[in-house]
Formats: sequence, C-alpha cells, structure tokens
Amino acid sequence: MTDRSPLAPAAFPSLPSIEGVTLRTARAGYKAWTRCDLTYVEMDAGTAVAGVTTQSKCPSPEVEWCRDAIPLGSARALVVNAGNANAFTGHRGRAAVEAIAARVANHLSCLPSDVFVSSTGVIGVPLPIDKAEAGLDAAFTAIPCGWEEAATTIGTTDTYAKGASASAMIGDVRVELVGIIKGSGMIAPDMATMLGYIFTDAAIDPALLQSMLSAANKRTFSCITVDSDTSTSDTVLAFATGKAGNAPLTSMDDAGADAFHAALTDLCRQLAHLVVRDGEGATKFVEINVEGATSDDSAHRIGLSIANSPLVKTAIAGEDANWGRVVAAIGKAGEPADRDTLSIRFGTTQVASGGLAVEGYDEAPVAAHLKGQDIVIGVDLGLGDGRATIWTCDLTHGYISINADYRS
Amino acid sequence: MTDRSPLAPAAFPSLPSIEGVTLRTARAGYKAWTRCDLTYVEMDAGTAVAGVTTQSKCPSPEVEWCRDAIPLGSARALVVNAGNANAFTGHRGRAAVEAIAARVANHLSCLPSDVFVSSTGVIGVPLPIDKAEAGLDAAFTAIPCGWEEAATTIGTTDTYAKGASASAMIGDVRVELVGIIKGSGMIAPDMATMLGYIFTDAAIDPALLQSMLSAANKRTFSCITVDSDTSTSDTVLAFATGKAGNAPLTSMDDAGADAFHAALTDLCRQLAHLVVRDGEGATKFVEINVEGATSDDSAHRIGLSIANSPLVKTAIAGEDANWGRVVAAIGKAGEPADRDTLSIRFGTTQVASGGLAVEGYDEAPVAAHLKGQDIVIGVDLGLGDGRATIWTCDLTHGYISINADYRS
Repeated sequence: MTDRSPLAPAAFPSLPSIEGVTLRTARAGYKAWTRCDLTYVEMDAGTAVAGVTTQSKCPSPEVEWCRDAIPLGSARALVVNAGNANAFTGHRGRAAVEAIAARVANHLSCLPSDVFVSSTGVIGVPLPIDKAEAGLDAAFTAIPCGWEEAATTIGTTDTYAKGASASAMIGDVRVELVGIIKGSGMIAPDMATMLGYIFTDAAIDPALLQSMLSAANKRTFSCITVDSDTSTSDTVLAFATGKAGNAPLTSMDDAGADAFHAALTDLCRQLAHLVVRDGEGATKFVEINVEGATSDDSAHRIGLSIANSPLVKTAIAGEDANWGRVVAAIGKAGEPADRDTLSIRFGTTQVASGGLAVEGYDEAPVAAHLKGQDIVIGVDLGLGDGRATIWTCDLTHGYISINADYRS
Repeated sequence: MTDRSPLAPAAFPSLPSIEGVTLRTARAGYKAWTRCDLTYVEMDAGTAVAGVTTQSKCPSPEVEWCRDAIPLGSARALVVNAGNANAFTGHRGRAAVEAIAARVANHLSCLPSDVFVSSTGVIGVPLPIDKAEAGLDAAFTAIPCGWEEAATTIGTTDTYAKGASASAMIGDVRVELVGIIKGSGMIAPDMATMLGYIFTDAAIDPALLQSMLSAANKRTFSCITVDSDTSTSDTVLAFATGKAGNAPLTSMDDAGADAFHAALTDLCRQLAHLVVRDGEGATKFVEINVEGATSDDSAHRIGLSIANSPLVKTAIAGEDANWGRVVAAIGKAGEPADRDTLSIRFGTTQVASGGLAVEGYDEAPVAAHLKGQDIVIGVDLGLGDGRATIWTCDLTHGYISINADYRS
C-alpha cells in the first residue's frame, strides 16, 4: 500500500466475530507482489445472501456469476481475488470463475451457486486458473484470520484496510453486522473497484435481506462518487448466517426488522464513507446536501452533478468558496432548477440566495470551513420537498499522479 | 494570456473581411488588466441572425437576452464583455444587459433587440453598468480593428486567439464565412465560457440560417468537451450581412444552400477544435469515433462518456493504451452495449475485439500513436449503424493547477 490517505481513520476498528463465518487468506500470486491476494470466506450451511452489483453494460464474469446466484438466496463461500479484475476476458474469464466455484463446491460439498466470486485489478487479462486453484488449495488449509487481514487482502490501490460494524436488537436478541470493503474510487481501473462484503449472525429471509440491502445501497453506495467512473466489477454482498438465534426475520413488519434495517443502512454508510476517504488523491471529504428539489431522485442527480464536476472538486482542493461553479453544476444537471429560487451554503454560511450572491456575507467562517478536511455544501433549490445527500472528495494533483503518471 | 497551448496552431490565420461587418475594441476595465476587454461589432442594416445557447438551467441574463432576440431574426450589433460573466446576478445583471442594448440602440438608431450581448468571466458579480457604458462610448469612436484583435479581446483564460474561415459558392457568387471563438473548456468558470461568433456576407433567411446553425452545432460544438462542465453562458451566434449579392437563400432546396451549409459546418468544426486545442492543461487532442451503436444519439452519448471519463483522459495524458478504461466508460454510459461484440482501436490498431483483448497485437504502433499530439480512439459496438465523433483533450496536472492552485 502507498501512503495512507490523510482522510483515513486513525486505526482499523475493533470488530466482533460473526458466528458461522470463517476468514482465511492465501497468496495466489496474481501479481508480482508478496502479500496475500486471495481471500476465502467459509460460511455455515443455512447462510442467506443478498447483493447489488454494478449497472455497467460491460460487467465482469464475476458480476454475472453473482447476479445469477444471488436470487437463489443461499451461500456457503466467498472468494475474492485481488490484482486481476478478470473483466473483458471473454469465455476464458468465465471459465476461471466456474473453475473457482467448482473447486470450492467440491471442497465444501455444496452447490457451485453457493460460492460467490469477485475479482479486482487489471482489466483484460484472464484470471490464471492454475494460480487461482493453487491459491484456493492453500486457503482451504490456512489458519483462520481476522477482519483486518481479510480487509487488507481484498485491497489493491487502497491506502488502508476498511472495516466497520453495527448491531441491532431483534426481539431480545442482539445481532451483529460487520462489513469490509475495498475501493479507492467508484472505479480506479486496472487496479481497483469497489467490493464490499457484509456479514451478520442474524437470521433473515434472503428476499427480505435483499430488499433491505437494495434500499440501503440506494442511500449509501449509490450516493458516493470519487471520479464518476463506474466500474465493470462493483459488487456488494450481504451474508446472514442465522447463528444469533433471533426469531427469523421474514417481513418488514416483524419485530426488530426496522432496527436491523437501520443497522444495515448505518453499516453501508460507514463503509461507503471509508471508500470516499480513500478516494485517489483525496485531501477533503465532501458532503453535498440537496433539498428543495422536485423529487428525491432529482435531488440525487443534482447532487451527483455537483459531486462529479471537476471544477467544483478542484475549487474545493484549492479551498476556494467558488459557489459559481456549484451554480454551473446545478444548471447542467438536466433537472428542474430555477436560478432565482436557488440558495447555496458552504458549511453553515449562506453565500448565495434568490439568484444572486448574499451581499456582505461573512467570508471568515467560509474560509475557515474550507481549510478543514470535512466540507459541507448545502443547496436549496426552493422548488419542492426532494432531498438527497451525496459524498465525494476533492480532485487534486494526487489523482492525476495516480492515474496518468503510470503505465499499465 | 498564459503560456500558449502546445496544441495551438502556429499562427492566427489570414481571414478575409466580411462586407457589412465592422469590428472595434475598447477597455471597459472589468478587471485589473490593461488589455481591451470590450468587443463591439457593428453590422449593416439587413443583417440576419441565428444562434444557439447553453442548455444550462441557470443561464446568464445575456443568454436569456439572446434567446429572446434570436427568433426576431435581425441584428445590428454585438457586444462582448470579457472578465465578468454577469451570471447569477439577479435583476442587476439583467439591468446591465438592458443598459448596454439601450445605449447601442440609441447610437445606431435601431431596436434594442437588434443588439446581441455576451459576457464571460467571474460568476456572481453584477457587470458594472458605468464601466460598460464608458467602454461602449470609447468603442463607438475607436478605429476599426481586425479579426485577430477582436478574437483576442473576447478571450479570458484562452492561451491564443482563435479564428477560422470557410467559403461557399451560391450560384456564381462566392460567399465568405469567418468565425472567432473563445473558450478553454466547455466551461472554466470564473474566467471562461465558450462564446463563438460567425460572420458571413451571404444573403440568407434567418430561419434557414438558424436551422443550418442548429444542425451544425449538433455535429460540432455539441461534440466537444474539455471537462464535462457546461457553462451558464455558452453562446454561438451567426450573422449574415447579405452583402455578397447572392440570390438570397430561403430554403435548403435553393441552389448553393448545401454548399453554404457545408461551409458553415466546416467553420463550426474548425472553431470547435480550436477550443479543445486550448483545453485547460491539454497536451493531447483526442478524436473518439464511435460506430455500430443502436442510433447516432446513442453513439454520441457513448462518445461523451468516454471523452468525459477522468480515467480515460488521464490514461491518454500518461500515453497509456489503457483500453480497459474505455470499456468501463462505455459500460457506464447507460446506452445499449454488448461487451461481447465490442471492439476498440487506438490509432489504426485493433486492441480489443469480441469481448477480449486481441491476442498478440503489435504494441509498437500503439505506443507510437499515443506519444503523438493527435490521438484517435475507435469504438465499434457491433450493434447497429449509429455513429458519432467526439473531440476532447487529455486531463493533466495543468488542469489541476489552473483550477485548484487558484483562488477566486
């Protein structure tokens, strides 16, 4: 890993173990590195699964595999390969995924569709099946490891290991949720993709878990952007072992379902923020709160238009309260907006309102806010009740250095 | 002006004068600079006008003024203010535009709606009416100047003056077209916007001129992007004085209409390329040819998705034939695409085809192509007949320096 992001948390958190989940890592040698690069997670029989994957029209074979397996609802294992995305590799890429699933299925005496596979790294190079198989064989007999080692092993250009936890009460049973994630951009191809894995001991029907995960995804992972480039391989999977002993959740009306949903959403938000905080070249974490839009979806698109604007992102890097660039980004979003009802805040200071600059606003708190690491931009469109929050980072020389001063 | 773009033409071209068009410049002093910053163009009575303006939902009052005046079809003057965009300035911005139009109308004894106004520069500061009026008074009595001086005066962060010409035969009459343009990005707010002005001595009905300009715009200005940030103020106006003496064009069926349309489109393309070649921080001019899409519009959107991808743009800056990033950009476009029928070229070399890398393709010509200043990326989606060409530039440290290492 390269220099730790200035926005990284001080340390990897202390995370509880999840009953029914066993983590192991091994070195398949996908790249010329000496670290472990294959993560193998075994889950007890009866584990439910849900997932969300990239909207890309050019998905990796791993994404296609997961899309087919998720609706079946059950999981026994997860394999994550780091250093090779196996994307855009035709039938050879598909064959590698099938070989991995078959080898794990044989080892666990389960169905291949119970085995979930992700890969992250360079695009266009088929994952070498021999290395994957040897790596798996090593993993099968490896000593189990902890969350931090697994979170480190799934990473590529990540500058720190990312994990988080949450908990909820279902009836009188406390259930635990733990997530690990990797990513240093919505995409940073060749070397990165967002992959997130959530494990819980709760007993929950896979269809309900899927609906909760999809809803959480819409408000968390779908609300972050580093560079607007969506990956071929983005995947978030949630596994529920059912070992906590709670009365199984099967509907949102069940006691504890709301609490579990809230905990799952909270965990997704934590993980999503960890990715933005490792955005390539990032020096500022930026929250964009949009309100007063004609709908929540419209607010979401306006927020993303601001968050993806290179000019807004470079202004923040330059600690410049350049609200004119925010106006331009709102104007180009293609969503309902009325220049003359629009107002903009930096931090808590209103800088523009009713179609023009707020005359004589105090620049001192704005300048102080922009010098910090956590920037909040507020936009009120003055049109309706639609709202959304988007998280992003600034755009700096570091991003250019990582992505241009580099050859594949 | 800062250092001339490495992609700039060797010199400003030799351009013919257009009968019925008189150029003058003056110093209004919108910024603390000593150069002229107000361009005043007088056109003889009978001049037809057409125009296209930004799609932004937060347009400048100048854009709104032009949108109202264009359908009336006649023009007598153009005023361009450099150094202040007058955007997002409420009723005070509108009043400044009205004051300028009124003063010119009084000077020329014409209607205010015959006066076209553009402004470019910082957003959010009302254009000072007293400076505009004093600048206009100075311009009214200034000695007429040439195209290069006018092209220089409309510029802001532009690193070189931009002009081009074309000609066409209408019957046995040769008509001339000259255009000047400024812009160093689709937007580079605070200090730039794309403003283009085309002048011709052809006699042409304004409605026909409008339809030709709109069609040309769709294939030229709408096909360029520097940073994906659409301006609040982008404007292209075409003025036809009718002094060439050709039989007036009133329909596409008239003799010479096709030739004139082709010349106008050619001129628009030249001007559009000049803007990309002055893209902020640009070191490479990039043409993206998309074919095989399900429609031309779909090809256009896929081309823009590639052209706006920070990861594609940084790869080109790094002279890296990173076609995986092109695949990812196609995949995220939201348009029909099939990974397994997709092929990609760099220069003339096919690097990926049928869903995977072309095995053993010769990397030498690809590397040589990427070391050049003019990069061509070809994408064949293999789905239909839709095609589009998009032009952009690379994304470099220069862009970050211009936009982040800077305070407004």
